[in-house]
Amino acid sequence: MSQASKGKSGSDALPAREELAGLLEKARQLSAQTRCLIDQALARGISHRLKADSTFVTDVDLAVEEHVRSALSGWFPSHGILGEEFDACNPDADYQWIIDPIDGTRSLRHRVPLFGTILALHVRGQPVLGVIDLPGLKRCYSGALGLGTWCNGRRLQVADLARDDTLEQEILSIGERAQFHKAGKADVLEHLYRSHPSVRTYCDCFGHCLALEGSVGAMIDPDLRLWDVAATPVLAREAGCSFHWLRRDEKSRKGGCYDVVFGKPRVVDWVMRLWNRQPF
Amino acid sequence: MSQASKGKSGSDALPAREELAGLLEKARQLSAQTRCLIDQALARGISHRLKADSTFVTDVDLAVEEHVRSALSGWFPSHGILGEEFDACNPDADYQWIIDPIDGTRSLRHRVPLFGTILALHVRGQPVLGVIDLPGLKRCYSGALGLGTWCNGRRLQVADLARDDTLEQEILSIGERAQFHKAGKADVLEHLYRSHPSVRTYCDCFGHCLALEGSVGAMIDPDLRLWDVAATPVLAREAGCSFHWLRRDEKSRKGGCYDVVFGKPRVVDWVMRLWNRQPF
Repeated sequence: MSQASKGKSGSDALPAREELAGLLEKARQLSAQTRCLIDQALARGISHRLKADSTFVTDVDLAVEEHVRSALSGWFPSHGILGEEFDACNPDADYQWIIDPIDGTRSLRHRVPLFGTILALHVRGQPVLGVIDLPGLKRCYSGALGLGTWCNGRRLQVADLARDDTLEQEILSIGERAQFHKAGKADVLEHLYRSHPSVRTYCDCFGHCLALEGSVGAMIDPDLRLWDVAATPVLAREAGCSFHWLRRDEKSRKGGCYDVVFGKPRVVDWVMRLWNRQPF
Repeated sequence: MSQASKGKSGSDALPAREELAGLLEKARQLSAQTRCLIDQALARGISHRLKADSTFVTDVDLAVEEHVRSALSGWFPSHGILGEEFDACNPDADYQWIIDPIDGTRSLRHRVPLFGTILALHVRGQPVLGVIDLPGLKRCYSGALGLGTWCNGRRLQVADLARDDTLEQEILSIGERAQFHKAGKADVLEHLYRSHPSVRTYCDCFGHCLALEGSVGAMIDPDLRLWDVAATPVLAREAGCSFHWLRRDEKSRKGGCYDVVFGKPRVVDWVMRLWNRQPF
């Protein structure tokens, strides 16, 4: 029951399978190039500066986003591009590429090898294609509507918990504590810790990829911008995961404000009941 | 001021530099072999069972420990061997090899690629040589007294925080929440979270290796058995880290009970003040 089948004709038509496959191939090529840029930068040394919003940006973030923008503008001059570090290009176009050049800048700065590059295509607001590349693990997660989710050459298919599997055996992955506080969900985090024996801070896109593999039962990631989560909905659903927006505020700031949970369906259901059960 | 220089003669003499270099080379060879065993097992599929102490063991833990024991017994028949999964061999020998075949069995079972194999040599109770191999990252951390700490072919030297660096910019790495509870230190964990903006659960030997790289300011790891931490003291000190035992109870159970902190000296000092400041 691919979502692509909904709108094959009419003004809300999504790209046909062949077009999507071509776009996915281009996105994978780009990710191979950004991985080279990042590996070279790590070998050379990275400089960083504090941005106006009190987060850091490195010269690698800027170089990777410039490279991706330049390639996409050459291939698809009519498409829009939205990225973390520069202004939006063609913001009214139906096809919007969304870039997070380094998701996990704090990890990159400290050489924790769990950062990644995110690239996604949304068509009239719907995520249709996504790539998350993890240079430190040499793993590229990619997929598109109806085409499945892949890690390098291996197709991913997450199995739900079997009836006799207990939730306690699963690892739950979460973003950093500060994200829960900023989202006004510090109490949910406390309740998660009290309710589950293995909650680990596998933050940023590394935690997303662990959920796509079924290595964690669910990833719970609040207070995201659009580029942090642009690739995940299509990758998660194509891998057989449940994906839910717990908050979807597109307007309140640049990049919006999103809280998400995704993973094995039974685990996601459990998290959603806990998330919505307030006050504790 | 190498600790080896203390006892070059007399009954408490530590191995000479040349002997240590030879032993380290053997330990590195063994780690290359265990990595192959683990990679093959991951490709083939892993089975597991619950142990009497309610933790899991996999067929990989057993196969790796058996392989290491067999090689060590052949090379050094008079040495002792202490491992997590089998009985001690030559427990009264001066030279004791300590093995954790899979540190992070929960991660291995779930294919989170952050588990590792630990091998250490203690001479009359003093850690003199250590290897931590991370198959998922293809990184082998190894070193010995006076010979430095290395990651693959790169020597590690952790720089302390400079005077104008703030502690807030560092990532702190911790073991799982349950370890703090078992160690009776749940209040320390809460205080860590309240006092520092970036505390992440990089548990098991992956967190140890991040501290050896200087990627995290410190690793705080309570409720360990000897094999979990057997390689770390020598690797940490040879890499320029501070290393402190917060608890060192060798007798209360098989493998003892240890709480440790190690990393950049100024960060470790801060953690130790917090650890010892009770009640909060």
